[in-house]
Amino acid sequence: MKWTKRQRQPKLKEHIKEDPFVTDEALAALFEVSVQTIRLDRLEMNIPEVRERIKDVAQKQYDPVKALPEEEIIGEIVDLELDKYAISIMDIKKEHVFSRNSIARGHHIFAQANSLAVAVINDQLALTAHADISFKRQVSEGERVIAKAKVLEIGTLRTKVKIESFVEQSLVFEGMFSMFREEKKIKEE
Amino acid sequence: MKWTKRQRQPKLKEHIKEDPFVTDEALAALFEVSVQTIRLDRLEMNIPEVRERIKDVAQKQYDPVKALPEEEIIGEIVDLELDKYAISIMDIKKEHVFSRNSIARGHHIFAQANSLAVAVINDQLALTAHADISFKRQVSEGERVIAKAKVLEIGTLRTKVKIESFVEQSLVFEGMFSMFREEKKIKEE
Repeated sequence: MKWTKRQRQPKLKEHIKEDPFVTDEALAALFEVSVQTIRLDRLEMNIPEVRERIKDVAQKQYDPVKALPEEEIIGEIVDLELDKYAISIMDIKKEHVFSRNSIARGHHIFAQANSLAVAVINDQLALTAHADISFKRQVSEGERVIAKAKVLEIGTLRTKVKIESFVEQSLVFEGMFSMFREEKKIKEE
Repeated sequence: MKWTKRQRQPKLKEHIKEDPFVTDEALAALFEVSVQTIRLDRLEMNIPEVRERIKDVAQKQYDPVKALPEEEIIGEIVDLELDKYAISIMDIKKEHVFSRNSIARGHHIFAQANSLAVAVINDQLALTAHADISFKRQVSEGERVIAKAKVLEIGTLRTKVKIESFVEQSLVFEGMFSMFREEKKIKEE
């Protein structure tokens, strides 16, 4: 069942409030209307596009990255609490895919996740010691990957970080990263 | 104890014959002479430099890569027998390292290994499904990483590939890759 504009717009607003990272494409599919309709709805309600919304969330709250200069992060950090969690987004472009089939190459998906595992560490130096990773489904050119890092355990030797990467709501990558950090090493010595 | 040139040169020749990938720097350390001395020794004996020697080995024998265009491989393939083994080299340059400490970033070391795991597969399509990876020691700018792939098992669902990457003789990375391949999938259906 399709809604009228008057029925749709408040629901759309509520949906975006709950999930500020949702794309116009996903909203169009959800509400069974065209992407153009979603854009017009947003314009009428003065809701910025997803990238602006994400930056907005980011500027409000996130910690500065310590373990590496922010411009060396693969993907764009949109949320971060050091030693707790972090989120980054990466748009899959031509340079990230195999020329034959436009499927994103594994090392780019890994680079985003690995970068985020480094960035979440509250230390001047963090390096990946070990990772157990799974590529859950193929990612194609034009898709946006949202990586979420969660610090599970800060041990004396290693810090464990879980990364899950999604396209829309579907899991495309997951990895358990075991990170070496400078400070912990110094404390041990 | 240092050898005279006359004593050193035959030993040097023999050593290079056994390990064509050895660098002048490693030979200099081994024979306790300067890199310049090794270069002069090679010139006198008409032994090409390591990169030329590697290409020479390569041109003699290696299979063409099937799973991706060769220019999409990260690193340079120097030896390959499809579904058996593969070797690639990658020189760590400024663009591969953290600006702060000149340590190679994990995703570049991973990219070389992952690429090689794809390249060794005798199929038109190969994708990484799972990987269990360890970074064994830091790699610095200017170092050359030699990655070696060995196909351990070709199962109906996955092909297992072991990758070990070295700088000189020391292990810097190892990973067990579980690869999806198109042909095997078709056979199953």
